[in-house]
Amino acid sequence: MSKPTPISGFPEWLPPQRMIEQYVVGRIRDTFEVYGFAPVETRSVEPLDQLLRKGETSKEVYVLRRLQAEEADAGDDALGLHFDLTVPFARYVLENAGKLQFPFRRYQIQKVWRGERPQEGRYREFLQADIDIVDRDTLPNHYEAELPLVVGDALGGLPIPPVRIRVNNRKVCEGYYRGIGLEDPAAALRAVDKLDKIGPARVADLLGETAGASPAQAKACLSLAEICTPDASFVDAVRALGVRHELLDEGLAELAAVVETAAAHRPGLCVADLSIARGLDYYTGTVYEAQLQGFERFGSVCAGGRYDSLATAGNVSYPGVGFSIGVTRILGLLFGAGQLSASRSVPTCVLVAVADEERREASDRVAAVLRRRGIPTEVSPTAAKFGKQIRYAERRGIPYVWFPGLDGAADEVKDIRSGKQAEATPDGWTPPPTDLRPTIG
Amino acid sequence: MSKPTPISGFPEWLPPQRMIEQYVVGRIRDTFEVYGFAPVETRSVEPLDQLLRKGETSKEVYVLRRLQAEEADAGDDALGLHFDLTVPFARYVLENAGKLQFPFRRYQIQKVWRGERPQEGRYREFLQADIDIVDRDTLPNHYEAELPLVVGDALGGLPIPPVRIRVNNRKVCEGYYRGIGLEDPAAALRAVDKLDKIGPARVADLLGETAGASPAQAKACLSLAEICTPDASFVDAVRALGVRHELLDEGLAELAAVVETAAAHRPGLCVADLSIARGLDYYTGTVYEAQLQGFERFGSVCAGGRYDSLATAGNVSYPGVGFSIGVTRILGLLFGAGQLSASRSVPTCVLVAVADEERREASDRVAAVLRRRGIPTEVSPTAAKFGKQIRYAERRGIPYVWFPGLDGAADEVKDIRSGKQAEATPDGWTPPPTDLRPTIG
Repeated sequence: MSKPTPISGFPEWLPPQRMIEQYVVGRIRDTFEVYGFAPVETRSVEPLDQLLRKGETSKEVYVLRRLQAEEADAGDDALGLHFDLTVPFARYVLENAGKLQFPFRRYQIQKVWRGERPQEGRYREFLQADIDIVDRDTLPNHYEAELPLVVGDALGGLPIPPVRIRVNNRKVCEGYYRGIGLEDPAAALRAVDKLDKIGPARVADLLGETAGASPAQAKACLSLAEICTPDASFVDAVRALGVRHELLDEGLAELAAVVETAAAHRPGLCVADLSIARGLDYYTGTVYEAQLQGFERFGSVCAGGRYDSLATAGNVSYPGVGFSIGVTRILGLLFGAGQLSASRSVPTCVLVAVADEERREASDRVAAVLRRRGIPTEVSPTAAKFGKQIRYAERRGIPYVWFPGLDGAADEVKDIRSGKQAEATPDGWTPPPTDLRPTIG
Repeated sequence: MSKPTPISGFPEWLPPQRMIEQYVVGRIRDTFEVYGFAPVETRSVEPLDQLLRKGETSKEVYVLRRLQAEEADAGDDALGLHFDLTVPFARYVLENAGKLQFPFRRYQIQKVWRGERPQEGRYREFLQADIDIVDRDTLPNHYEAELPLVVGDALGGLPIPPVRIRVNNRKVCEGYYRGIGLEDPAAALRAVDKLDKIGPARVADLLGETAGASPAQAKACLSLAEICTPDASFVDAVRALGVRHELLDEGLAELAAVVETAAAHRPGLCVADLSIARGLDYYTGTVYEAQLQGFERFGSVCAGGRYDSLATAGNVSYPGVGFSIGVTRILGLLFGAGQLSASRSVPTCVLVAVADEERREASDRVAAVLRRRGIPTEVSPTAAKFGKQIRYAERRGIPYVWFPGLDGAADEVKDIRSGKQAEATPDGWTPPPTDLRPTIG
């Protein structure tokens, strides 16, 4: 076999990076749980027809085929890998509605796949960490204010740049567009969504072409999208544009509540940014997008929003609100910038040396005691010269080497960073807490 | 949308079961780390041609196709979902050999997929937890004795039935088969592998048909497979069969070392069982299979072995030994038997009541303090009557409801199981440790 090469879009980490990923995921998970979200995982596949109904990402599905399948198999019940965790979750809620308690708060940390054409910086497999709250029939608006605080807490405790959450509300946009006389607000929203990518002049053109906007209407759309405030003052700025519509009023009130709650609990976390649209069709109210400060040019690393009709069965609907943290995107940016590292490449804190193969059993016994006390320990692979065994530890960043006492002598443990060596017993010695596990910084 | 139905072979758990799964995975992971295994994840896909070379499971691959791909795309570089974690790990080692330290100890806990025909009790997506140790050129045999101890420790700390690990060594079988004059030991091994399923009479027939064994040779093969001892006494039992071969001697010595080490550290964990063969082609020495005691009829839940030539590049080879815990299989068996449960369906320890919507902010502040102190907390979804808010907690098994004091009165917290209610402050009150998180039993 010749040396294999990576596959574009399918990132893999070396062990120190994977340790960092586990640390980040652990912190996110702990935060989700401290807010009372219950864990769920869904299967990786959904029926293809379900995946194909949900917004523009649905074009990027990986379809599965059993290698052993007869051709006829590949028809109606074809399966595809999920491209997000919201669509599978909505299906899970419908399927298990009778067994769940509503409102239902769940978190879900899993890989998702997008069958995109390979291109620089685009992942085709990546890890997402989602929270959602769904209720039956109606969902109180205060949850829309809670979710940004959860995400702020989850990421705020990590050694990464602060996150800035931009919030908007589709009712604001739709009400405003209707108020200025546009008849296809969805088309207008799709055009404005491209503002970051193509700039205002081309968005104005697009508004004319796809949403039937006059130059004055296009200008009015762009004026709305320019509004961005860290507090509820955006309401006055919108009012100053002189547009009136009932849906606009509703949206402004909802958005003000989200921004004010965030400002009270975590100043600086959220801004009202009326240019935010979000690509997915299923959002019906609040929408979120978040970026890492200093990494804005790489786009958003978290996103979410409120969806009122993603999950409906008969005449029961399950409105929800969710927020998704792009774990792989965040790590990819920070690894790329060399900003996160682990203090060693293995969990191991102690290497127990082996004097000769006949005495391996004595080293195994020392290791067993240390492990029982929760101290990550390896035994040397060979009874090589001690210098070579110490180099085994050094190359991996293992801080301590343990020398079992020979012929009745006491055991000794050496801190190979300082060179200090001292007598010790496996059931008495404890490393400093900062050495017990690799540290991330 | 009508109510969705499950897809055969793709299990999904409700939140209490997922909490149990996380607890089990956490325990396994902690054990792997205390033995110094470093974490790795590999991408979910491998080039199809790589998957198709590795033993009989390779027939059961799911092939991926981009929905948007041109037909021409689907050719040479087709991708398939991995069916185990060993083949991807061997590829990972070759790809990153220059960046890894050998011997390399890694663990990997991920989903795998098998594109089997749907049938009762067979998973098509399931979670595995693997450890492997690989070295460059040569790998010391003592690692083959270490891995069963790691698995025994990982599962031994869980509230599940004890595992029994059955160990064999392919050199024993191959040497013995050659010693009695069989020229296709691989065919004989495949026949003996079916012993549990089809019984000795049909295995004897199969040995004649596929391995060219005479009735006497078939009988000799079955005599070997009957040997099963909890210690190294199997060596004498094999010797008593009167067969001589150099490879047999080598295998007996290796197997005796594994069984004796296991007996010294964890009596009762391992038995030498000379009927164990393992389906996968790549094993070259020690092989393991483990069952849950009391659930033997459902087959093995862990398996592994030594492979000397799975990863080779040019004239460098990376021999390895690995053990895989079938997490989904274990949980499926125990959930099916109603043997594992969680004390509540949410992580939440405290529900903060809301007196009226105008005072939600006061409840939010209490929750923020409790969360900062690591106490999983929710705020009531509505300002319904307190009786209804208490029922919200009851239905989820949340043990405490917190009542913020109104108009200067002190806060009170109620244990809704005992009905006891007492004054408390959010920065002073602490629940008993057993109530902080859901318990698994």
